[in-house]
Amino acid sequence: MDQQKTNKKPVVVSGARPTGDIHLGNYAGAVANWIALQDDYDCHYFIADYHALTTHYQDTSELRDLTLRVAADYIACGIDPDKVILFLQSSVPEHAELSLLLSMLTPVSWLERNPSYKDLVNELSKLEIRTLGFLGYPCLMAADVLMYRANFVPVGEDQLPHLELAREIARRFNHLYGTTFPEPAALLTKSKVLPGTDGRKMSKSYDNTISFADAPEEVQKKVMCMVTDPARIHKTDPGHPEICSVFSMHKEFNVEDSEEIARLCRAGEIGCVACKRRCGAAIAKFHTPIHEKRTALLAQPSQLIERLQEGSKVAQKKAKNMIAVAREAIKIGF
Amino acid sequence: MDQQKTNKKPVVVSGARPTGDIHLGNYAGAVANWIALQDDYDCHYFIADYHALTTHYQDTSELRDLTLRVAADYIACGIDPDKVILFLQSSVPEHAELSLLLSMLTPVSWLERNPSYKDLVNELSKLEIRTLGFLGYPCLMAADVLMYRANFVPVGEDQLPHLELAREIARRFNHLYGTTFPEPAALLTKSKVLPGTDGRKMSKSYDNTISFADAPEEVQKKVMCMVTDPARIHKTDPGHPEICSVFSMHKEFNVEDSEEIARLCRAGEIGCVACKRRCGAAIAKFHTPIHEKRTALLAQPSQLIERLQEGSKVAQKKAKNMIAVAREAIKIGF
Repeated sequence: MDQQKTNKKPVVVSGARPTGDIHLGNYAGAVANWIALQDDYDCHYFIADYHALTTHYQDTSELRDLTLRVAADYIACGIDPDKVILFLQSSVPEHAELSLLLSMLTPVSWLERNPSYKDLVNELSKLEIRTLGFLGYPCLMAADVLMYRANFVPVGEDQLPHLELAREIARRFNHLYGTTFPEPAALLTKSKVLPGTDGRKMSKSYDNTISFADAPEEVQKKVMCMVTDPARIHKTDPGHPEICSVFSMHKEFNVEDSEEIARLCRAGEIGCVACKRRCGAAIAKFHTPIHEKRTALLAQPSQLIERLQEGSKVAQKKAKNMIAVAREAIKIGF
Repeated sequence: MDQQKTNKKPVVVSGARPTGDIHLGNYAGAVANWIALQDDYDCHYFIADYHALTTHYQDTSELRDLTLRVAADYIACGIDPDKVILFLQSSVPEHAELSLLLSMLTPVSWLERNPSYKDLVNELSKLEIRTLGFLGYPCLMAADVLMYRANFVPVGEDQLPHLELAREIARRFNHLYGTTFPEPAALLTKSKVLPGTDGRKMSKSYDNTISFADAPEEVQKKVMCMVTDPARIHKTDPGHPEICSVFSMHKEFNVEDSEEIARLCRAGEIGCVACKRRCGAAIAKFHTPIHEKRTALLAQPSQLIERLQEGSKVAQKKAKNMIAVAREAIKIGF
């Protein structure tokens, strides 16, 4: 950590809501990228538990448990708290203060035109989601990234509007009160979408995930039940790996063998059962050590909390400095 | 202060935005009431500088100066920091955190139907006022009062919708997470409206105020220029004290003489100039000592800041406890 301070690596900030155990789809879509960045950037990764309330305020019974599970998943996957600042958002309440300050200059119209707001309001209307907190979550996100003067935010294309909003808020703040925040740029990641066991995008809401919380036997069962090329009835029928979920898994977790698998499948020389066995074995090689490490981490919850709080302390020190700078720019308080 | 803690006086919370020097209209309308409550209630009075940003974010150059001026005005008027907790909102950033937590369960529709929101959006459209901070200010107000488990909030009738919203937010929080906040009740104050020098309601925005910042000579000049009963042309014409601004001042600051003044006026036995002189003398008796005290307080700004910060420390201690309770109820963080 001390070394990082003297280095001038570009600052990266990213967070995710603790809404479920991390699964292979999360890994391929986001966590792998977090890991890839941790050597070359000054990374600030956080568990966005305030944000979790924007959609899950009505049932918070699992929030703390999920926070710990997700923290264990991250560390087990390879996020290294000695290389990055891994912290818990609600342990740095300065995020709430900066969000309030930024809310004062953020037009509601900027938030209402946020496409994911419009989508979610339609999609989740049953959840009484149209709350102030939900409307304002891009403003809290802006606070999250501006707090650490992020140079880059790793985003998929679907999140570009949020980042653009954070940039607009930074520009408006700088215009009103003098240059304070750099405008964070997108670190566009190829958004890798892994299919779930039913062939749709792997997602907790589809109940089609393979998560690091799953026991190894469970993983094997799930792999064996995955949907494959529906046109392939007999094992000698020629298959279409490009539309097969199992083949997507091979490409992600069984890279060396994937070409061969594709050839055998197209030639009708490997049956789906055998193919799934090889896939299951490859996934197990990746999954089992992470599963075991996260299980071990979760067996010592107080140590895990301590680890999160250590990261949070480092983050909070930076946040306190930034809040002081922002307050001085606005000229509020003493 | 220590004595208060053991007493179980009902808790009162009230704040005002530092948007201008305190004037006689503010005194009659609010400050006098604050003073009247300070012996019988456990009063928490704060200078709402976060709230000042909801309408004045575009020009904050005077915010700190106004904060001190208002603090000096309050103390000079008789708000006693040894009897009440007099604090600065932005020195207790826990208000921002509680506001964020409450925002998660506050429907935007509750805020949009707030009548003063609708009025101000129309009235102040030039100021680009339709910001998230402005939309959300009743939620921040709810945080302000719930933070100290207020039993009562002194309000005029026009502020009843805000208080009702705070009560609804408290109810919703208690329903979702278990009983945490008492619902604050209104301590309805006869809203005394003092006319300004032009006969309209005394208000900074009409530039018709007599403020404690005005030097005594200035006050006399302003009183001599006040509009009176326009039907009264000669000093022997019978006057109508009930429609005369000067008479309103007599009633407020020259109580013993006001009956006699009314009689003389109605009988055409006193001219407006003589009446204003008597009014000016009565106002001076009240105004000059307060003016002198606030001038002396402002001559020592660092002592004044220290005084505010002492109150803020006491408030913050309570706020930290309340935040811990609220977080525990929501079950967020460690």
